[in-house]
Amino acid sequence: MKLIRVGAAGAEVPAVLGAEGQRYDVSSITTDFDSAFFAAGGIADLQRRWAAGEIASLPTLPAEARLGAPIARPGHLVCAGLNYADHAAESGMAIPEEPLLFNKAPNTVIGPTDNVHIPRGATKVDYEVELGIVIGSTCRYLDSPADAWSHIAGFVVSNDVSERSFQLDHGGQWMKGKSAETFNPLGPWLVTTDEVDMAAGLDVWLDVDGGRRQTGRTTSMIFGVDVLVHYISQFLVLDPGDLVNTGTPPGVAMGMAEPAWVQTGQVVTAGISGLGEQRSHFVTAP
Amino acid sequence: MKLIRVGAAGAEVPAVLGAEGQRYDVSSITTDFDSAFFAAGGIADLQRRWAAGEIASLPTLPAEARLGAPIARPGHLVCAGLNYADHAAESGMAIPEEPLLFNKAPNTVIGPTDNVHIPRGATKVDYEVELGIVIGSTCRYLDSPADAWSHIAGFVVSNDVSERSFQLDHGGQWMKGKSAETFNPLGPWLVTTDEVDMAAGLDVWLDVDGGRRQTGRTTSMIFGVDVLVHYISQFLVLDPGDLVNTGTPPGVAMGMAEPAWVQTGQVVTAGISGLGEQRSHFVTAP
Repeated sequence: MKLIRVGAAGAEVPAVLGAEGQRYDVSSITTDFDSAFFAAGGIADLQRRWAAGEIASLPTLPAEARLGAPIARPGHLVCAGLNYADHAAESGMAIPEEPLLFNKAPNTVIGPTDNVHIPRGATKVDYEVELGIVIGSTCRYLDSPADAWSHIAGFVVSNDVSERSFQLDHGGQWMKGKSAETFNPLGPWLVTTDEVDMAAGLDVWLDVDGGRRQTGRTTSMIFGVDVLVHYISQFLVLDPGDLVNTGTPPGVAMGMAEPAWVQTGQVVTAGISGLGEQRSHFVTAP
Repeated sequence: MKLIRVGAAGAEVPAVLGAEGQRYDVSSITTDFDSAFFAAGGIADLQRRWAAGEIASLPTLPAEARLGAPIARPGHLVCAGLNYADHAAESGMAIPEEPLLFNKAPNTVIGPTDNVHIPRGATKVDYEVELGIVIGSTCRYLDSPADAWSHIAGFVVSNDVSERSFQLDHGGQWMKGKSAETFNPLGPWLVTTDEVDMAAGLDVWLDVDGGRRQTGRTTSMIFGVDVLVHYISQFLVLDPGDLVNTGTPPGVAMGMAEPAWVQTGQVVTAGISGLGEQRSHFVTAP
């Protein structure tokens, strides 16, 4: 099942995407795809209703309406860094011996076609297409990576937009270059785990103005989805509705001999096979 | 004015603390001290009602009931690191040239008398008493440090509990050692800015089992409250209800020749003049 949120920013309506692009309004079933929805087993409930034909009889929302991020603002946005060996190499950093974690401000999350604001003072704006994991139920000291699967609600395309000067040239921790407003386009869809063959792997790609910049495959991740969720749960509690970005494949601007930072006016498209594609105009922050 | 939240964890009722310790139930005015409350000017509204004598006529809550954190779970928990020169020295780290920022999982926040769980696998549990800033209104590209004051709702005692092995020995970023469940006791009170003379400074202290460990004064901060909020607003958007920890004075276990890490069974008390005192039992995580 593919979940979407439809409507103006801050007033999105939860919906289920039909096979022909129908947007079935499920606001009569849940107010939002938020922590309470996931915690109450909302995905399983929607799947039961889908199988029973209930959802296909609901009213639909306009096909041309804006898509928001497919989940409400997460309570926590955790990221794995340097999780593809070739991206670690291009970044001039060592391959981590255990997952490298950082985080972004949760209010960075925006919809899959919303503008990304280039922050004031920015000189090195970069992109990082990533597989995003949406947490379905509380993860606290999971016993094993295999246990992680039942705690995952689904997967989503995520762009961990980064300002490398803020991240690396101003002292301290990475979050300073990861947390600017609009720095995490998310979506278009939240695809439930039953529709994703993670063992086979998914193709990951990103273009700037139509030119391919990043290409990867999730099977090349150093630490897989299950290993990451299990690992994180040993250090903190992941709550339903939290988002985990799993690291980016090679091709970021920072890795280039002459980095082609993203400029105002450029368009970044990013996608993952089966999870859809997002399209972000980069504009000067107002 | 002093704001408190009274009752069982997850079911706290917002209240105003009277001069004789009365706990005036303000749930008829607001459902919680959360982002929506601050954004709607809730503090100013309560102050008007207080001046008009309205609040003193409200029903009171039991004096023996648990205090929760004085604010609802924040959307983002940002911390300044190494913000007292003598703490930077004891940590063996350089004094930062500009504010060093990191963050903690927002679900670490607990009440001022709740148990702190020593995480599984922990060997180096440490404390950091800090002045906490509660954001009152959106901070985005503030023009100057002086502008910060009108965006602050108030101040609170905060303990940035840390596991130094998780923080420093497992690769990557500090958040890994900052985000374990229960790692941010907060309160007892949110004290509004009109009751705090930040120019004169506040005394900050922390004891372990009654023995003084940390002593400081907010006037010794390298980057003051206004400088921090202004600085952070250049890199990310602070929302109403967000929490900023401003760094800890010297005396943490990490700074000792033979670090006296906190052990199961110990009690940490921490206070700031005018902001009250918190008391946390450290227990083994269940």
